[in-house]
Amino acid sequence: MAPRVLTVDSLNPKVLALADHLGCDAITRRAECIQNEIETKPGSHPFDEIIYCNLSNPQSMGQKPNKFFREVLALCDYPHLIEQSETNSLFSSDAIARARKILDLFPWRTTGGYSHCQGTEGLRDVIAAGITSRDGFPCNAEDIFLTDGAAPPVHMMMHLLIRDEKDGILCPVPSHSLYTSSMVLQGATLVPYYLDESRRWGVRMSDLKKQLDDARSKGINVRGLVVINPGNPTGHVLMEENQREIVEFCRKEDLVLLADEVYQENICTADRKFKSFKRIARSMGFGEGDISLVSFHSVSNGYYGECGRRGGYMEVTGFNSEVKKQVYKVASLSSCSNISGQILMSLVMNPPTVEDESYTSYQAERNGILSTFSRCAESMVRALNCLEAVTCCKAEGAMFVFPSVRLPKKAIAAAEERNTEPDVFYALRLLENTGIVVVPGSVFGQVPGTWHFRCTILPKEEKIPLFISRFMAFHEAFMEEFRD
Amino acid sequence: MAPRVLTVDSLNPKVLALADHLGCDAITRRAECIQNEIETKPGSHPFDEIIYCNLSNPQSMGQKPNKFFREVLALCDYPHLIEQSETNSLFSSDAIARARKILDLFPWRTTGGYSHCQGTEGLRDVIAAGITSRDGFPCNAEDIFLTDGAAPPVHMMMHLLIRDEKDGILCPVPSHSLYTSSMVLQGATLVPYYLDESRRWGVRMSDLKKQLDDARSKGINVRGLVVINPGNPTGHVLMEENQREIVEFCRKEDLVLLADEVYQENICTADRKFKSFKRIARSMGFGEGDISLVSFHSVSNGYYGECGRRGGYMEVTGFNSEVKKQVYKVASLSSCSNISGQILMSLVMNPPTVEDESYTSYQAERNGILSTFSRCAESMVRALNCLEAVTCCKAEGAMFVFPSVRLPKKAIAAAEERNTEPDVFYALRLLENTGIVVVPGSVFGQVPGTWHFRCTILPKEEKIPLFISRFMAFHEAFMEEFRD
Repeated sequence: MAPRVLTVDSLNPKVLALADHLGCDAITRRAECIQNEIETKPGSHPFDEIIYCNLSNPQSMGQKPNKFFREVLALCDYPHLIEQSETNSLFSSDAIARARKILDLFPWRTTGGYSHCQGTEGLRDVIAAGITSRDGFPCNAEDIFLTDGAAPPVHMMMHLLIRDEKDGILCPVPSHSLYTSSMVLQGATLVPYYLDESRRWGVRMSDLKKQLDDARSKGINVRGLVVINPGNPTGHVLMEENQREIVEFCRKEDLVLLADEVYQENICTADRKFKSFKRIARSMGFGEGDISLVSFHSVSNGYYGECGRRGGYMEVTGFNSEVKKQVYKVASLSSCSNISGQILMSLVMNPPTVEDESYTSYQAERNGILSTFSRCAESMVRALNCLEAVTCCKAEGAMFVFPSVRLPKKAIAAAEERNTEPDVFYALRLLENTGIVVVPGSVFGQVPGTWHFRCTILPKEEKIPLFISRFMAFHEAFMEEFRD
Repeated sequence: MAPRVLTVDSLNPKVLALADHLGCDAITRRAECIQNEIETKPGSHPFDEIIYCNLSNPQSMGQKPNKFFREVLALCDYPHLIEQSETNSLFSSDAIARARKILDLFPWRTTGGYSHCQGTEGLRDVIAAGITSRDGFPCNAEDIFLTDGAAPPVHMMMHLLIRDEKDGILCPVPSHSLYTSSMVLQGATLVPYYLDESRRWGVRMSDLKKQLDDARSKGINVRGLVVINPGNPTGHVLMEENQREIVEFCRKEDLVLLADEVYQENICTADRKFKSFKRIARSMGFGEGDISLVSFHSVSNGYYGECGRRGGYMEVTGFNSEVKKQVYKVASLSSCSNISGQILMSLVMNPPTVEDESYTSYQAERNGILSTFSRCAESMVRALNCLEAVTCCKAEGAMFVFPSVRLPKKAIAAAEERNTEPDVFYALRLLENTGIVVVPGSVFGQVPGTWHFRCTILPKEEKIPLFISRFMAFHEAFMEEFRD
């Protein structure tokens, strides 16, 4: 018997209202179970390994961490190493130099003290310099808040902006669940706007305006607009013209632009470039006084995939000093973000340059991963587009493809019979038949009546032909079985 | 001109309601300013260095990190080292063995993937084993949630328990600001209970009961009770009998016991021992079904002071599976805590044992720090108790003394004239005259009409005589100046 006090109905209804993604959980649990069976009873399934395309977690898929990053982290953890003669043969010279420089930023050269609640000042300087050089417009270290990944600062901004359910935020559909969850937890009204699949997942401004006007006519005070670029789950990179329209829209409609730019390092195609929303705004002549803009970044999402290290930042611009004081108060509630993550974020924003010993290997690691991403994405998209009733936009950035599947009515009916979403039904079938794990589109939201799945481009390149052949065979059989 | 949208009055009133501790900030800013002046204009102040007794941040005061901990962290950051021949001369053998063991818990031996949102399973096993051996009662790894320090899990529990302002939490006065801030942010009603200074800051059960009944008579649904043991800011360790009374009270009154046990490793006196509330509850025969209990721990607060590494855990017991699912949902909102902090938490809960190479040095580091703490605390308390109108309880644990100063009426009037709290006035005067920085009691709450300050026992031991002589001279002069 559990104590009387804590029954589930006595809990915060906002917590209860958080989606539990049952469909997604069912798939993950089933995959775990199959994995187990494959190991304990070989031959029990029509495949001998699971291909995980659900996890945006590269290192858990076997990707090696970046050498330079890890060298510097290790030296900062145990500075005693720096003074040892053996260290010169174990570490690259620029990693040693960088670690020295970083350690000099800390009192007593330890990295075990709380930092300023916005993050260590010197590291913020380095990050601000990196942003300045990325954008060609100045970044002020005072605007940087170093965070444990991108989730805490998103929650912070929601805390700040949302008073009650009369406050709303424009949020893209599809989008990954961080924003919707954070809004549910704060009791905000989610004001959805659909990304336009027919225009490579771009934002249709007329739809955006319509959603805003509709919400306002219902008395919703729309406070901000979330944009995810490069996109998750959609893997798109916005056209510069579209970004300008969004900036202009936020300025005109007095919306805080919440720009999720965590995939900024991952561009998979030559015809797209990452441009930050701040760069776009500044290049349009909009300064501090014209637009409130928050950019989120994280060490979890770049090609190097340091998800578990929980480093991140938000750059907060166009906030007056009174408002900024309130951001600061919320940030200080958790003392500071982890120093190791802070250091890593500074390395990401200022990697080795051409004079550095690590430059060549750093570039080789980076280009190797990014070009593999490109090739995998291209093969996957090409194969998917050959399938009946499947269309898939080009993967431009991030690490996903998000194909649409026009499911036959019979498949939809079969899903309904099993009391499950049709895309969950499809994904479960895929798993049972091929060992391929994907995330059903319903987790992210999609235009009603359309069905998608998110598939990462992270499987090892040598597995891609296997992925494709298994997928194609499954899909053909599925369509055959449920043909209307 | 800042954009129209974001005026401070359009923000979440719960954020605006967060205390900004202006008095405390004024002292910190003044200390920074004086530090600057001392460096740039030597002789500009009646002292030549600031003595920081406001920061519970040992490594920022020059304390060295624990060698074993940092060796393991460095090896886990850069596993390549483990295979190198030089490593055997650079690292202790048990650090290498431990790092190997830890790396084996991770797919592909990298530590850069997201872990399970409760934390890496194998590390939770190790921590559960540590808790089991600490308490003599079993701990289940399923009950452990690894966190970025103690603040996030406190916020999680408040999120879970608080629906609106009709929900309240019993919270000690004085207490450090994490709990009160978290309650303000959730819109909870704070139900204060005073710690009894005349009984070494113990909990008077009659007062607790009175506060609970008062709150209930006002329609407040009291959901939980916060206890901080060892105490912050009070530096006390609860008597076992008092702990039993608290457990019995929570069980009888259906309150979730939120036990802040972050200072559990720091006991400064031979006549007190740390006993976890779970150990007390289990030893009273209360099991899972009898009491809902959350214990918070963190790598920030132990004598080793790894504040910046943001490791921590909460152990959640006596929650039924439905409720636990909701805790899990809240925890998953931030993916996972940082892996480096997770590893460190596992080391803290399972330090080197007598067979390990590092055992002797580990014990020497630990005992050195703890016995220094004891000696510093004892000297400070003895000196403070010699002062007119000052009384100070023995420092039993944590890293603080929290003396009471009966301020003369004239001093109180002088503070009021300056529109400041009397304890802030005293602390500012102390800073101006001696360079000693303390935190005024009003930051933590105190019985109205009493005045305290929190002073850490962290200054280097050789500075303690200087601290004492400066303090005594200041206090005598202050009392002389304001004598009624």
